[in-house]
Amino acid sequence: MRKVAVAGIGFTKVGEPWERNVKELFAEAALGALKDAAHTEVEHLYVANMMGAHLQGQIGMGAMMAEAIGRPGLPAVRIEAGQASGGVAFHEGVKAVASGMSDWVLVGGVEKMSDLLPEAVATALVGAEDQEYTAYTGVTKTGLSAILHRLYSHEYGASPEEIGWFAARSHDNAVGVTHAQYPFKLSIERVMTSPMEADPIRMMECAAVADGAAAVLLGPADKVANGIEVAASTVATDHLSLAARKNPLTLIAVKKAADKAYEIAKTKPKDIDVLEVTDDTTIDGVLSLEDLGFAEKGKGAKMVAQGHTTRTGEIPTNNFGGLKARGNPIGATGLYQIAETVMQLRGEAGANQVPDAKIGMAQSMAGVGSTCSVAILRRV
Amino acid sequence: MRKVAVAGIGFTKVGEPWERNVKELFAEAALGALKDAAHTEVEHLYVANMMGAHLQGQIGMGAMMAEAIGRPGLPAVRIEAGQASGGVAFHEGVKAVASGMSDWVLVGGVEKMSDLLPEAVATALVGAEDQEYTAYTGVTKTGLSAILHRLYSHEYGASPEEIGWFAARSHDNAVGVTHAQYPFKLSIERVMTSPMEADPIRMMECAAVADGAAAVLLGPADKVANGIEVAASTVATDHLSLAARKNPLTLIAVKKAADKAYEIAKTKPKDIDVLEVTDDTTIDGVLSLEDLGFAEKGKGAKMVAQGHTTRTGEIPTNNFGGLKARGNPIGATGLYQIAETVMQLRGEAGANQVPDAKIGMAQSMAGVGSTCSVAILRRV
Repeated sequence: MRKVAVAGIGFTKVGEPWERNVKELFAEAALGALKDAAHTEVEHLYVANMMGAHLQGQIGMGAMMAEAIGRPGLPAVRIEAGQASGGVAFHEGVKAVASGMSDWVLVGGVEKMSDLLPEAVATALVGAEDQEYTAYTGVTKTGLSAILHRLYSHEYGASPEEIGWFAARSHDNAVGVTHAQYPFKLSIERVMTSPMEADPIRMMECAAVADGAAAVLLGPADKVANGIEVAASTVATDHLSLAARKNPLTLIAVKKAADKAYEIAKTKPKDIDVLEVTDDTTIDGVLSLEDLGFAEKGKGAKMVAQGHTTRTGEIPTNNFGGLKARGNPIGATGLYQIAETVMQLRGEAGANQVPDAKIGMAQSMAGVGSTCSVAILRRV
Repeated sequence: MRKVAVAGIGFTKVGEPWERNVKELFAEAALGALKDAAHTEVEHLYVANMMGAHLQGQIGMGAMMAEAIGRPGLPAVRIEAGQASGGVAFHEGVKAVASGMSDWVLVGGVEKMSDLLPEAVATALVGAEDQEYTAYTGVTKTGLSAILHRLYSHEYGASPEEIGWFAARSHDNAVGVTHAQYPFKLSIERVMTSPMEADPIRMMECAAVADGAAAVLLGPADKVANGIEVAASTVATDHLSLAARKNPLTLIAVKKAADKAYEIAKTKPKDIDVLEVTDDTTIDGVLSLEDLGFAEKGKGAKMVAQGHTTRTGEIPTNNFGGLKARGNPIGATGLYQIAETVMQLRGEAGANQVPDAKIGMAQSMAGVGSTCSVAILRRV
């Protein structure tokens, strides 16, 4: 199996560009990745998108995006794994290069959510839950996270404010980030006085709807000058329903994907210099931090509240604002995480740079953990 | 790059089982493939599905189907490439084994279309066309094929009846096939007197809505006893819109995927003993036959009408009824084609057996050729 490296990255500003369609967003990110890599050859295209069918009626985005980037004919496919689509598409792209079937593989993700009614987006977001069992009840994705939030507080005595800190910390890191949806601070007071979204989760604890696209060009490590090596890329799943899980507060898919990634990359949590996790609500971020191995179970919220995930803390996390502040254009999110990790490892993160970051991890999660992808990247 | 083999196949009867959901259908096919292979280990699951979001509101079928087959936790992902989803998922599965990342990979496809209004299905079927350009006009998938049908007759002087023969030939092969949706003969008179669906394409020239699931287990060729070797697996795309293509009567994606597959497998059309092509309308089948290299451009319809694609003809085609008669549960169709090709190469096709079939080809196509996958399988 060949070693794979990230040769280039590209992304759009996350926002609400109502005047642009999925093709334009995707093309900007994908062509950006090629330009960044100073490379033109592409042999295969992976397109990550979660909700195109629900929101634009659009599927078949593989062939569509091949054409949109001016390469009709290119082998192309859409990858969908709920909210983890971007991270899982990265995994499939790594496999394509590792197999030797393709040398140069472009992996891009896109989502366009802003120009639709909130009800339509909520329905789409719960699309990856079982429609005949979970979604049927009318619960939203945030509602499912609210169950975990409540249980977490009950089991571990974490206060709502401690959990809410995850959002404030993410926003701290987004200040001045030109591609971020909300590049400004958000005080913990503001978080805790915002309206209830799904009790006990408040609106300012949730990532917002967003449009955006991100892409990476992958190639064989021995052909990429100054590339960032993919030390590990893994995917795992779990029971869809929280009710089917032995302990809903342990995200088994996150644990499995992380454990395997550590094993493949021969690393441990303490070796990771920069981390991107899925904070589409604060509790999702907290549980991810724990199940990736950065905090003991039940202590993740306190760890964040106490400042251990800041740029100068023990595990700098969501260094450009995460899903909450950089933004969460679903199908693209996992690839923003990869691109941002690459920026850190290249030392190109500007004011957001974590000094001498050598190893980075990105974790992308669907729903409340039904699918999880983990990538470990390394500067060589 | 390792050689890959098909270790097992499984599928449901194609039909209209209103009482069964996508999970039940998928599990029957997937567990069938494991049983057929007499193998229990699976490391990765690929799920092909085109229209789940449109028809069931259901996405995230990777994790869902991992759970449905009793293996929650299994790395899993959904592959979508319009009507070619099944064939493209096979391609991705082959890559996963070839890479050495996984030894045992299960690739299954499912679609459930029958218990919905025809209008909903028509909207979903045109989902892989550009929603802001092509689908926006209100055209259906069959309507796009009708444009090709009309142009083909005009350019090459083929009669409607000559083209219509494709449906009659497919039905001839479905007689007695227990998994076929329509296991009976259909006379050319019946085809040509059926109501117009999209002028000049008649209803009996079109595959019907159908439910079904099919799956294959892939493994490293050197670990599969009596496996069928994957000699080549390729994917190509084309401009989505017919209007953007230089010559709409040449399906460039089909030609590209086929040419590359012949090159990789070191074979020529004359080496292929059994063939499965995409006859979701008669003209799609005719054009596929030509662009795969089995007929000169403009002579495919006559070739079929004259009987050269029958079991004893020069290129036995759609040997269990094809999309028209075996049935076309979209996301599963490409995998039915692979499974049926394997049956032929194993010599297990019973009354449908093409004597001494050694090399087979399966072609799966999205829309009017926006994506095409080609697989060449070989008995070793």
